Amino acid sequence: MTKDGFRVTPWEISGKIDYERLIKEFGVERITPELLRKIEHITGETHFMLRRGIFFAHRDLSWLLNEYEKGNKFFLYTGRAPSGKIHLGHLQTWMFTKWIQDKFDVNLWFQFPDEEKFFFKQDLTFEKIEEYLQDNMLDVIALGFDPKKTHFIIDTKHASLMYKEACKIAKKLTFSMVKSSFGLTEQSNVGSIFYTSMQTVPAYLPSILKGKKIPCLIAHAVDQDPHFRLTRDILPKLNQYKPASIQCTFLPPLTGFEGKMSSSEESAAIYTTDSPKEVERKIKKYAFSGGRDTLEEHRKLGGNPDVDVSFLYLKYLFEEDDKKLKKIHDDYKSGKLLSGELKQITINKINEFLKNHQKKREEAKKMVDKFIFKG
Amino acid sequence: MTKDGFRVTPWEISGKIDYERLIKEFGVERITPELLRKIEHITGETHFMLRRGIFFAHRDLSWLLNEYEKGNKFFLYTGRAPSGKIHLGHLQTWMFTKWIQDKFDVNLWFQFPDEEKFFFKQDLTFEKIEEYLQDNMLDVIALGFDPKKTHFIIDTKHASLMYKEACKIAKKLTFSMVKSSFGLTEQSNVGSIFYTSMQTVPAYLPSILKGKKIPCLIAHAVDQDPHFRLTRDILPKLNQYKPASIQCTFLPPLTGFEGKMSSSEESAAIYTTDSPKEVERKIKKYAFSGGRDTLEEHRKLGGNPDVDVSFLYLKYLFEEDDKKLKKIHDDYKSGKLLSGELKQITINKINEFLKNHQKKREEAKKMVDKFIFKG
Repeated sequence: MTKDGFRVTPWEISGKIDYERLIKEFGVERITPELLRKIEHITGETHFMLRRGIFFAHRDLSWLLNEYEKGNKFFLYTGRAPSGKIHLGHLQTWMFTKWIQDKFDVNLWFQFPDEEKFFFKQDLTFEKIEEYLQDNMLDVIALGFDPKKTHFIIDTKHASLMYKEACKIAKKLTFSMVKSSFGLTEQSNVGSIFYTSMQTVPAYLPSILKGKKIPCLIAHAVDQDPHFRLTRDILPKLNQYKPASIQCTFLPPLTGFEGKMSSSEESAAIYTTDSPKEVERKIKKYAFSGGRDTLEEHRKLGGNPDVDVSFLYLKYLFEEDDKKLKKIHDDYKSGKLLSGELKQITINKINEFLKNHQKKREEAKKMVDKFIFKG
Repeated sequence: MTKDGFRVTPWEISGKIDYERLIKEFGVERITPELLRKIEHITGETHFMLRRGIFFAHRDLSWLLNEYEKGNKFFLYTGRAPSGKIHLGHLQTWMFTKWIQDKFDVNLWFQFPDEEKFFFKQDLTFEKIEEYLQDNMLDVIALGFDPKKTHFIIDTKHASLMYKEACKIAKKLTFSMVKSSFGLTEQSNVGSIFYTSMQTVPAYLPSILKGKKIPCLIAHAVDQDPHFRLTRDILPKLNQYKPASIQCTFLPPLTGFEGKMSSSEESAAIYTTDSPKEVERKIKKYAFSGGRDTLEEHRKLGGNPDVDVSFLYLKYLFEEDDKKLKKIHDDYKSGKLLSGELKQITINKINEFLKNHQKKREEAKKMVDKFIFKG
């Protein structure tokens, strides 16, 4: 979609995203207060990303929860196409996914489609992707997923498990269908044309392995919806459930509002391996501020937390406590809290998180094998 | 290609094929007497299919033989997409391939692309293909390939070995390239568009596994050339040799000259599992005859062996002795040998072959596992 200056496809996010428009054009549903209450009823709480509208849209979530209440447990599916280091923007979906895993006590299938970015980035090699894969798996494990209930599948390594299923999907998909969904052309490589078939497989692979239909919940950023729209069209033809999904907005880049946090710009992302000093430098130097130009003006007129990237990182990821967040919001808005002070709060929160994450990342090195699915 | 009423693509053969035209339009080379002498020099003999022009065209065969003489041994690659029972037409390439394996003492990689026909035949299921696969492997083994030097690879089962390599190929192939080579359209399924990437892999997989470049000779019927033209364009970009190839004409169907022996018509094919009675019935009922309408005319004017399917089966497959074949040819042409008598010679030859083949096919059931590549 390219309209009014923003663009959201699985391969490109740019411009200031109008999520209301996206909901209409993608045909997803907004998560309603009723749905939130239903989740709270089951889990005993709601996650702050739900309360704050960060996970904002879904497909068939009511159906999925009804099935769950009837005893028909779902499995979770999310993933990561290795093509760079992990930054804070990636963690959003995974932290939320872990919460779902814990609260609903369900299996998670975590796909690493190591061929996806290979097809879309001219200079990216499988050797480089393998390095990113090994690195990226550590970040996922570090978040604390249950190794007994979490299965990593890596497309090229698990191809004997996945390729035949992908062929079943591929037979139902014409070039004309993927062309319009993904903006491909006759000059696109045939790997990029086939690829979505592989991304569909984990949405029903557990059902194949168990020999019975199991509902699936895909947690993902909204840009991946085109893949799963096709998945939902096709799976009923293979006598499988349509996967439900729950979709989040993008973490803004350091520099402001357009697009999403991305590895392609050093200045736009905070990586999970950044040192405390790097985090401090990046936030101080790049984090877009909603504060006023001068101290006097700020004290008098107050800042705008809603466009302040430091505030938004607290809201999206690091300040789970609504009351504390509201106090920061109000203090910033009133001018009581200065931009530098707000940045320092965020720096401290990020560094506190990363200190622990980096420790767990080291410990994860011994655990990778436990997570890789043995088919 | 569809011109002057014939069509040769990997998915369709129809009309009376003009092989001279095919040589020009595909851009392959005719096998010259010099090349035949070179083969004879190395092997001590020529195969009757070479002498008789059944294997008639090639790519880079001189280069391959030069490398061989320098001590740079090649490997053989051929295959079978399981989609039906094996008939005599299939045996041509494989019998010749076995001769090459024996005479040059080389490894053979035998691909069973079990997804290919799945993509191209709407109603064909993987369950049915699996049955054909199990059945077809027996025919290949029955021909006597050396289990120590023959490696079966089955696309969906060996996908963990092949898919990543196929992705490297796929990245270099655009839709526009495969579209023109295979006559695909925007309505073609994305599996059919991706597929040729998988057919390319065995042409260099042994080089990947050994970690050094090994020349490859692909033995195939000429309709498969479009796949390997693409293969030859791409492999140098992956720092691999272009595969050489040696290509054969098609065994005529029972009913005459147009197209090739094919499983799609019961009346056009003799299967390796046919009983002696079935063979007799099919040859007597369907085999197109070059004989005259009446006995008197035949005795007086003679028959035409060059269009007589019974004679051609002897020439293509069952009478290796040139002198005996010539006598049959001449006797038929002179009117000394009647159509019924010629048919009986062919029936006897086929049944003699099939009796032995069917015995070996039974024995093959215990050997399948030895042939399947353990990666």
